[in-house]
Amino acid sequence: MKTDLSALFCPSRVAVIGATEDPRKLGYHVMKSLLIGGFRGTIYPINPGRQEIMGLRAYASLEEIKEQVDMAILVIPAPFVAQQVRLCGRKGVGGIVLITAGFAEIDDPAGAKLQREIAEIASRSRTPIIGPNTFGLVSIKNSLNASFTPEFSLLKKGGISLISQSGGMSHLLAFLAMRDGVGFSNIVGVGNRCNVDFKDLLEWFVNDKDTRCIAMYLEGIDDARGLWVEARRLKGRKPVVGYKCATTQWGDVASRSHTGSLAGNPMIYKGAFSQGGILWVNSSEELLDAAKSLSECPLPKGRKVAILSGQAGPAMAAMDICIKGGLEVVRFSSKTQEKIEALLPPLALRSNPVDMGPAWYSSEAIKGIVETVLGADEIDLVLILVMFASANAGAVESLKGVLLDWKQKKPVITCLSSPPGIWDEAVRDLESKEALVNFPTPERAARAAVTLWQWCRMASGQ
Amino acid sequence: MKTDLSALFCPSRVAVIGATEDPRKLGYHVMKSLLIGGFRGTIYPINPGRQEIMGLRAYASLEEIKEQVDMAILVIPAPFVAQQVRLCGRKGVGGIVLITAGFAEIDDPAGAKLQREIAEIASRSRTPIIGPNTFGLVSIKNSLNASFTPEFSLLKKGGISLISQSGGMSHLLAFLAMRDGVGFSNIVGVGNRCNVDFKDLLEWFVNDKDTRCIAMYLEGIDDARGLWVEARRLKGRKPVVGYKCATTQWGDVASRSHTGSLAGNPMIYKGAFSQGGILWVNSSEELLDAAKSLSECPLPKGRKVAILSGQAGPAMAAMDICIKGGLEVVRFSSKTQEKIEALLPPLALRSNPVDMGPAWYSSEAIKGIVETVLGADEIDLVLILVMFASANAGAVESLKGVLLDWKQKKPVITCLSSPPGIWDEAVRDLESKEALVNFPTPERAARAAVTLWQWCRMASGQ
Repeated sequence: MKTDLSALFCPSRVAVIGATEDPRKLGYHVMKSLLIGGFRGTIYPINPGRQEIMGLRAYASLEEIKEQVDMAILVIPAPFVAQQVRLCGRKGVGGIVLITAGFAEIDDPAGAKLQREIAEIASRSRTPIIGPNTFGLVSIKNSLNASFTPEFSLLKKGGISLISQSGGMSHLLAFLAMRDGVGFSNIVGVGNRCNVDFKDLLEWFVNDKDTRCIAMYLEGIDDARGLWVEARRLKGRKPVVGYKCATTQWGDVASRSHTGSLAGNPMIYKGAFSQGGILWVNSSEELLDAAKSLSECPLPKGRKVAILSGQAGPAMAAMDICIKGGLEVVRFSSKTQEKIEALLPPLALRSNPVDMGPAWYSSEAIKGIVETVLGADEIDLVLILVMFASANAGAVESLKGVLLDWKQKKPVITCLSSPPGIWDEAVRDLESKEALVNFPTPERAARAAVTLWQWCRMASGQ
Repeated sequence: MKTDLSALFCPSRVAVIGATEDPRKLGYHVMKSLLIGGFRGTIYPINPGRQEIMGLRAYASLEEIKEQVDMAILVIPAPFVAQQVRLCGRKGVGGIVLITAGFAEIDDPAGAKLQREIAEIASRSRTPIIGPNTFGLVSIKNSLNASFTPEFSLLKKGGISLISQSGGMSHLLAFLAMRDGVGFSNIVGVGNRCNVDFKDLLEWFVNDKDTRCIAMYLEGIDDARGLWVEARRLKGRKPVVGYKCATTQWGDVASRSHTGSLAGNPMIYKGAFSQGGILWVNSSEELLDAAKSLSECPLPKGRKVAILSGQAGPAMAAMDICIKGGLEVVRFSSKTQEKIEALLPPLALRSNPVDMGPAWYSSEAIKGIVETVLGADEIDLVLILVMFASANAGAVESLKGVLLDWKQKKPVITCLSSPPGIWDEAVRDLESKEALVNFPTPERAARAAVTLWQWCRMASGQ
């Protein structure tokens, strides 16, 4: 079935089956998430023992609610789940987030059996289920936090949609994103994938207009072939990055007991990723960096990069990564070169990379060099790398007003690094207002540039 | 010559030749660095045109100073340098920091000639020179900031001594360290290495009691063989990590114009590093992470790691890296296993890795599991990985009082991650008071554990 997931990402009415005011239970945290997340629809706490929960009228059961319910979040013990899923089907609930654990991931075969039973019930009513054994899902753009972690709502709105087989990884990526000011659109913890799997969400997000990049964290899935077929079908329509863990012989054991699937052979996944236009990354940090650049930068027209730096060392580190990653650190055209030479004294590296060090004291010169290279037809991507020094304190200020025009045209990636508190605010400001895409090290900035090019190359089948 | 560098790292009297109150000149920033850095000795600003600089009596020349001068910092135009170096020799100055650029790194052969001339003058008086073409040097432990960047003094005192061929990289590493709370002992920008090279500083820091790990950033050096010989001689005496940039064909050009030396073949360096017991890393981030773990953790007795996590996904990511890096994720002894099973419900992963998730609500259980594994004879290293969730908010608190006893005995590395502002203070507190060594991602924590083991293996020649 091609599943309509709109009830899951943009519901108006949400029931929380297992809502409670007891902070030792997940039903409490789910309620808090919805409320703190600023959900704009109606919340129906369901708990037969209560009249009111967190100031909202509580219901004894789904059947008591007169209105149509779009989404039900289930946080009740496993033995009660099947019955509630059946009720949801009967009531025409549009989608279920099944947080409860204790299904295919446990040693006892009764868990897998129960999960199959639930899948059958849901398939009869065509109800999509996220989970079981998940932290939930979050749609930042819709102010919907259907998870047991209210803090997900601290995320900035952005273009990344994450499909993740691990709650821990989803939390980690969200926290890293908050610290780096990276924006998300959606985060989905797929858990044991009862009837909504990676391939369904991949298709959904490819067609979701607010998603600019899809990030995936996988351990092991039963229907790897299904994902591969779907990824190939959708290849090139939207940037997709994948991080596959459990790649050692021990992975299978751990992965099975985590979300109920074998990890499988990593080489097969690597090949499938490549054929399906999914960029392979090797860590959570790389996943976030890649998703950030792909969601925030325009794609480059070619592989020719210019490196502008405030100091030679970081430029060299970046150059190594660019060249190894397939970018070309080209010679400037004579027109570009002349303009740069007019702005920099002869002592400096004035070719590519350009060492802007000697122009430290001149905001106008830095601005002039950056604008020259942005406007140079022979350049497809631009890296700007400046480490603070007491003598170049104005460097970030001199980028003001320069990048915005290029937001849609040419990827510009920076590493502007300073002691805490010195450039942070100015960088955040340029990030939010002028399309600055900044990374904490020159190597990570360079890798982000390489990512953009590699995705283009893979998507076009080169 | 075996050089005595004590005047450079622990001087009592420092002359700044080229001191000024003009903020557009580096002599201003050097004065600020010494003053703000809290230098406890005497500063002699030298500038023939001034009576007083920043509230200190100014001198027309070195010769006017009656006392012995330990260190002279030179921030004057290149043509005046030789004469001042000669004066320093005559006055018996113990060491020179030569910030001025315009020597072997410039296209004009006059630069190289001038540098040779200075080297000759200095060799006659046996005066060690850091530079030319350097930002300077910083000795955090001695409150000496002999650089043009006062902000270096924001660094925490610690066990890392950095020898760097790039000012930009030194600044970057310092800023990253400030943000992550990593401590440094010394930072030296070697610049063009007039007569003090990597090998001299390597020996110095191997013998320096406050340096627990030596980090090196290299682009290319003329006397690579000299470094290799010295590193082999000193091999295993102290952890050394090296990051070599300019590893592509373009590197030679850029490197030569940066600090006057060819980059050379990276494979030769890689081999030399390995024979010399210098751990090879691939980025500034890896360099800092490796130096942090090697300077803050005891070395492991073996390769057996235990992974304790709050969530399965991060544990799996860490496990991949541990296994690929040569660590063994061993089975616990039955004694250890029994203790853990008494503390965790059967649903959880209770082998290695241990998923402490189900013990979220119980600080006592988490504490018990951590203590059990710390005390287990079969375990050489411990990784603790917990991502914040609203339900496990007390996890960091439950580590309080647990790790300090193990500071000298067994490496414990953590990734405790939360939204900004939630666990940060508690983590910093445990870092400063209880020997917590924390990293921002599970992969970086795992790589730090691998680093410890790899260095032990390399140092022992296995």
